[in-house]
Amino acid sequence: MVAEDMYELGSKKSTIRTIFEYGRQRAAVVGEENIFDFSLGNPNVPAPEFIRQAILDIVQQEDPCAVHGYTVAPGNPEVRETLAQSINERFATKFSGGNLFMTAGAAAAITVCFKALSEPEDEFIAFAPFFPEYQCFVEATGAKLVVVPPQLQDFQIDFAAFRQRINRHTKAVIVNSPNNPSGVVYSLAVIKELAAILEEKSAEFGRTIFLIADEPYREIAYDGVEVPYLSQYYKNTLVCYSYSKSFSLPGERIGYIVIPNEITGFSKVYGAIAGAARVLTHVNAPSLFQKVVARCAGMPSDISIYHENRDLLYNGLVAAGFSCVKPQGAFYLFPQALEEDDRAFCEKAKAYDLLLVPGSDFGCPGYFRASYCIKTETIRRSLPLFARLAADYGK
Amino acid sequence: MVAEDMYELGSKKSTIRTIFEYGRQRAAVVGEENIFDFSLGNPNVPAPEFIRQAILDIVQQEDPCAVHGYTVAPGNPEVRETLAQSINERFATKFSGGNLFMTAGAAAAITVCFKALSEPEDEFIAFAPFFPEYQCFVEATGAKLVVVPPQLQDFQIDFAAFRQRINRHTKAVIVNSPNNPSGVVYSLAVIKELAAILEEKSAEFGRTIFLIADEPYREIAYDGVEVPYLSQYYKNTLVCYSYSKSFSLPGERIGYIVIPNEITGFSKVYGAIAGAARVLTHVNAPSLFQKVVARCAGMPSDISIYHENRDLLYNGLVAAGFSCVKPQGAFYLFPQALEEDDRAFCEKAKAYDLLLVPGSDFGCPGYFRASYCIKTETIRRSLPLFARLAADYGK
Repeated sequence: MVAEDMYELGSKKSTIRTIFEYGRQRAAVVGEENIFDFSLGNPNVPAPEFIRQAILDIVQQEDPCAVHGYTVAPGNPEVRETLAQSINERFATKFSGGNLFMTAGAAAAITVCFKALSEPEDEFIAFAPFFPEYQCFVEATGAKLVVVPPQLQDFQIDFAAFRQRINRHTKAVIVNSPNNPSGVVYSLAVIKELAAILEEKSAEFGRTIFLIADEPYREIAYDGVEVPYLSQYYKNTLVCYSYSKSFSLPGERIGYIVIPNEITGFSKVYGAIAGAARVLTHVNAPSLFQKVVARCAGMPSDISIYHENRDLLYNGLVAAGFSCVKPQGAFYLFPQALEEDDRAFCEKAKAYDLLLVPGSDFGCPGYFRASYCIKTETIRRSLPLFARLAADYGK
Repeated sequence: MVAEDMYELGSKKSTIRTIFEYGRQRAAVVGEENIFDFSLGNPNVPAPEFIRQAILDIVQQEDPCAVHGYTVAPGNPEVRETLAQSINERFATKFSGGNLFMTAGAAAAITVCFKALSEPEDEFIAFAPFFPEYQCFVEATGAKLVVVPPQLQDFQIDFAAFRQRINRHTKAVIVNSPNNPSGVVYSLAVIKELAAILEEKSAEFGRTIFLIADEPYREIAYDGVEVPYLSQYYKNTLVCYSYSKSFSLPGERIGYIVIPNEITGFSKVYGAIAGAARVLTHVNAPSLFQKVVARCAGMPSDISIYHENRDLLYNGLVAAGFSCVKPQGAFYLFPQALEEDDRAFCEKAKAYDLLLVPGSDFGCPGYFRASYCIKTETIRRSLPLFARLAADYGK
């Protein structure tokens, strides 16, 4: 009667959703302040004041027909030009507005790329741990997601495992750095090695292998770490960006795809991206917020709270006996669970009202994700509970 | 190298797009005021003042994390409840927030429905003349669009032709009233007959045939004509609504699907809709505008300009010798072309810088569409040119 696969996708609650709802129920019983919900990736930093001011200025000063009217499908040309120049200033690239395609956030951006590129029997490669929605987004195009197992000591790329999985069916490789869930930023050396392998294999197989850079966390990086701009190292790169995290606008669905001129078959790729956006019914990215992000191009993200939270939670967990790769970006910690079965571990954590997401959900069993985009005070009060949980495991 | 079907969809310019770009080029030569572009369906009435005020109030008064944060996938529960009550007040329905699923406009709403319902070998039926994007939206789900030829004397439904096309593969029937491009509103008698046939055929084939009501023009109706609320006449109706036209917000992508409790397999259908929205990467409808339309629920659309434009253009064309069904809604006129070949006719109209869309694009050769959502003065100045065009045809 309905499409069963759609029903499955829409009716099965995700682990994160289930945890979130459990948290809401527990909060009703024990009180909001006694629930320590580390499950969600919803930014708790409010959108910056300059965003509010930009909305007010546009709505008060500009012609409503221009503000709220359709834009052309790739997005307002002036907006795209402004954003391209802003990217150029920061990353020494040479883009123009014609290299950008505005999208409803990064989820739409990556899926438009998958749909635009996917041909029968194609495979897309992701590196574990990875954002679990990749699976259904790739499979919805008819392609297959191939996962490279994690390199546990540092969550960089296991190139031996990668070489075993790249083949004549590989259409693209997805890189998400700073990474959800590990918080790791892929180093320049890693990016260069990845690019070299992609060059080598594209030549060997006689077909273009694309790199899809999923970059919603680009601006959320600490300690002065460099986040390489991937199109500078591999020409067949599509950069997918979102303002969800950097400007705390996840509900507004605003981002873009960069399609560099140097990409093989630029007009084919750009055309296919336009076609994919059309059939996915992303008619245009929301028009007011196109103008808002252009007004705020190049403005800094306020990551001071995340930075403080990272240090507090990381140091607290390490002191309690957890082992964890120190994240350099995003707002997640991805420590080792205190028993092999990460789902069992997360269940036990519930006894202290600590709500954590099993690493299995990210293709990385034996670990757990703790989002620290929550109130600093909540993290502070959670630390004794993490210590008691660790003590239960003899730490 | 890319998905060829996506490239085709994204790189081939639509007729409307081609006409629009031709108009831009001609305007550069002969001056903006000498181009009479009737090709686009972009509202020229600005968004009402209450929309501007709602944006300002929300942005100035509410917590930015709540305004710009993710909502749950079906949309902000308070917003849905408010909109449901507003629908109930106007149409004597009994919906609650749980019957609504917020979407990025009507294009997303209908496509989410197609994707949610579509099973192998399914067919969707549309009545010509029809919105041409139905074709690629339906085909993208793997289903087939079956078109019922137009009933030329009034553009209501040709039920004999419909009965010939409904069969065991029919999954749903799409109704767009007020209609783009004809401007016709389906009468209550027509809706009742349609509902009776759908009941009869659902019973005969032993499967639910859904009705998809595509209603972006619901509020744009003249002369006190009744626009029946279809779920009141056929229980297996999904109502797809958009604020693009009623509140002049086409660029903001905001609308909803109504899934009535009475629908067969409510939870299956609702689940499949959620799954379809997920894989089409409509993560949530834009969050600020969810709140904006809830604040403005039930506020009137200002259609006085469209009404004036309709009368001016309709009377002018009829006086010039055109024959045309008088539209009762939307902002389109759909007159008969003055020669059999509507494309040739529209080419000849260009000699007077009258830019019209051939009816063939809407599955109705021999006619043309003229959008009157443009400046009244432009219409006034175009009338002598239409008269000269008609004179060339001996009218």
